[in-house]
Amino acid sequence: MSTAACIPSVRPFLRNSAAFATGKDTPRAFLERCLEAYAAWEPEIGAFVHTNLPAAREAADAATVRWRGGKPLSAIDGMPIGIKDIIETADMPTEMGSPLFAGWRSGWDAASVASLREAGALIVGKTVTTEFAATHPGATRNPHDLTRTPGGSSSGSAAAVGAGILSAGLGTQVIGSVVRPASYCGCVGFKPSIGTLNRGGSHDHLSQSCTGVLAATLEDAWQVAIEIAVRVGGDPGCLPLNGPLHVPATKAPKRLVLLETAGWAVASEEAKAALRDAVARLSKQGVEFITRKTHADVEALEVAIVDARPLSAQINDWESRWPLGSFHARDASKLSRAMLDRFARAQAMQPSHYRAALIERDRVRMLYGKLAAQCDGCLTLTAPAAAPTGLESTGDPVFAVPFSLLGVPAISLPLLREQNLPLGLQLTGFAGGDVETVAIAGWLVQMLGGAV
Amino acid sequence: MSTAACIPSVRPFLRNSAAFATGKDTPRAFLERCLEAYAAWEPEIGAFVHTNLPAAREAADAATVRWRGGKPLSAIDGMPIGIKDIIETADMPTEMGSPLFAGWRSGWDAASVASLREAGALIVGKTVTTEFAATHPGATRNPHDLTRTPGGSSSGSAAAVGAGILSAGLGTQVIGSVVRPASYCGCVGFKPSIGTLNRGGSHDHLSQSCTGVLAATLEDAWQVAIEIAVRVGGDPGCLPLNGPLHVPATKAPKRLVLLETAGWAVASEEAKAALRDAVARLSKQGVEFITRKTHADVEALEVAIVDARPLSAQINDWESRWPLGSFHARDASKLSRAMLDRFARAQAMQPSHYRAALIERDRVRMLYGKLAAQCDGCLTLTAPAAAPTGLESTGDPVFAVPFSLLGVPAISLPLLREQNLPLGLQLTGFAGGDVETVAIAGWLVQMLGGAV
Repeated sequence: MSTAACIPSVRPFLRNSAAFATGKDTPRAFLERCLEAYAAWEPEIGAFVHTNLPAAREAADAATVRWRGGKPLSAIDGMPIGIKDIIETADMPTEMGSPLFAGWRSGWDAASVASLREAGALIVGKTVTTEFAATHPGATRNPHDLTRTPGGSSSGSAAAVGAGILSAGLGTQVIGSVVRPASYCGCVGFKPSIGTLNRGGSHDHLSQSCTGVLAATLEDAWQVAIEIAVRVGGDPGCLPLNGPLHVPATKAPKRLVLLETAGWAVASEEAKAALRDAVARLSKQGVEFITRKTHADVEALEVAIVDARPLSAQINDWESRWPLGSFHARDASKLSRAMLDRFARAQAMQPSHYRAALIERDRVRMLYGKLAAQCDGCLTLTAPAAAPTGLESTGDPVFAVPFSLLGVPAISLPLLREQNLPLGLQLTGFAGGDVETVAIAGWLVQMLGGAV
Repeated sequence: MSTAACIPSVRPFLRNSAAFATGKDTPRAFLERCLEAYAAWEPEIGAFVHTNLPAAREAADAATVRWRGGKPLSAIDGMPIGIKDIIETADMPTEMGSPLFAGWRSGWDAASVASLREAGALIVGKTVTTEFAATHPGATRNPHDLTRTPGGSSSGSAAAVGAGILSAGLGTQVIGSVVRPASYCGCVGFKPSIGTLNRGGSHDHLSQSCTGVLAATLEDAWQVAIEIAVRVGGDPGCLPLNGPLHVPATKAPKRLVLLETAGWAVASEEAKAALRDAVARLSKQGVEFITRKTHADVEALEVAIVDARPLSAQINDWESRWPLGSFHARDASKLSRAMLDRFARAQAMQPSHYRAALIERDRVRMLYGKLAAQCDGCLTLTAPAAAPTGLESTGDPVFAVPFSLLGVPAISLPLLREQNLPLGLQLTGFAGGDVETVAIAGWLVQMLGGAV
């Protein structure tokens, strides 16, 4: 397959599943179509670390019987899903993108995986992650252009969904690891409010990290998330993702903040023009946009989030003292240069540095929270441009990191184009307001999109 | 060894370590005295699941060299410590009191263990925990009376410290698992503010759970805790335990709340008399005591914490959906009846029940927090009586659970007696005020104690 042939198709599940009930289609047949895409694409893009296709086929057959009998386990019964290889699975190793964990098996399912199985989803395989979901990349390629990165750290889930191999993939985001690859691979990326999806058995321990979903459609993304939340809740002590068992009805926003973020300075002219065009179209539909120029509270936030990346890095560094220290003690030669550098930075930190960083994060969160009374959410790009060429970097997270720092819901919608490649439009909401954010995202898709 | 001979001796480390610097004593010689106690007591009390004595001796020799050279790694360099077997160790299995984890090894050290090793502590062995740090007991016996429980879930750490085998042991507490066994075994139990000690690699995932220290003295307990905090901090996103690198100077409280809790109704007359006597002695030293009879805010709190146990149980049940679900899927026959019952209760819960429980917990925490402006802390019993006879139960946590629910620092001091056995006096403080609580605890020891 040449790069010229790189025109993947999305694989929406819920819309197709209507045919399961009538018998016109079956989960097994749906899976086989996915596996055709797998056979065609996987040699090119390398999205998977492991698969368990016999188990997926067996589970698809069981789902087929349930749909036929009118008793599916859930709306996603039979949905083919990939699991980022930072999250534990009972039937496959969890290698975390690190040679230190080659072949490692915990022997059980993470909370998210256990709940997806319970809901009838087909766990097709483990998808490529960067080393420990940080920066050192795997070898996955972007299905829209094989010379380009799929983004990271949820590289394999994004590439597999973008290539039509899966309806959804689990990812995790601590900087930009869900929305950025979603932007690059032309799929929906949903990072819910921090803590709302249970991370038990997922090796992303950092305080800004959370489980997210990459999916062919917004409906599929919401459905996967809510099926997890109702079964295993959020992180211990956190309110679980709360909302309807089917994607919330779309809702027109009255007022949105148009955020520049530090990314504005590095975004391509074409990307900025694409965003401006979207804003113009939404304005025509009656949405009011406010900006740093018109509102002092927005200006204060824009100033505060300029340093979102170094602040997040400092928090992540300190919180990586463990387990990095234990990994280092075990075999430092199996850590990447980037990871050794992080460890060195972490070792140079004092608890007082971390304390100061947490206090600053709280301050920025408070500034952002003030906007909740004034608007329905914020709109910006997901990335400065389409996926960059080369596989040595997973791209610039500059548009994603503020919302990781803030811990708020962020959704990347594949509604823009740049260099004739996918580019995400990013909608962000307020902590705990995931339902409202998804409802508005649905409206944006109606107004700006077609197939999504 | 007959039960009549059961009079263990504490093994304070810091006080002895002064002799390490002068060469009068050495960490290796100290360890050998501990191992004499181990040889005499372990067959009777069964405090350990695994030991690594060759490694402990080797580490003691290295510590001896460092002290001799005037360059100890920390104040606890050479301190013999036991690790509750819910916490991962690189060199020993982590079996979690469950046959499901017989022989299981993660291959690396938990955050707390890694930092203790870095500080030079000797990791002598893994101490008995109840199944998954919950209620199903191990076979450990109380060194003060072999017919009695040592308490739980940190059973082995408490028994080993109480028997003079160790200077300190790590424990975890989600209901009463640090302070209750400390009370029963005659040692100090220090449960810091929730989140202040890093739980990475410790399989106590529940939101009320935290790492704590059981130790021969208050100084040793503080020192172990702070040596962890300065190296690996607290849980991600939480402010680490903050305070001086040596135990805070003692401080007389001006005003304490005398709390009854739901435990008052079941406490023995002798226990209540012992508490009243302590209060009378402290009053003579100028401490003012306020109670539910004199203060409406105290009465409101007393009413609110009556249900601390069922409320905590509900929170723990929901948060146990995972990993219990995955354990259940793996081999339900290896779970105790109590654990199967918990799983059944968890399965019957909805996210809305959990949400309501968290909101109620927040309300109770707010009520307690209101007292911070009115007093220096709260005093009560740690347990209704001395350790009960029999090994089938780890005793009543009624006096411990309110402070687990509240997430505040709680310290059990072995200053009372009941049936001529140890009984803890419990001092509790306010979230983040660990230094003040330890300072007051030190003063209580000066006023009421002798050897502690």
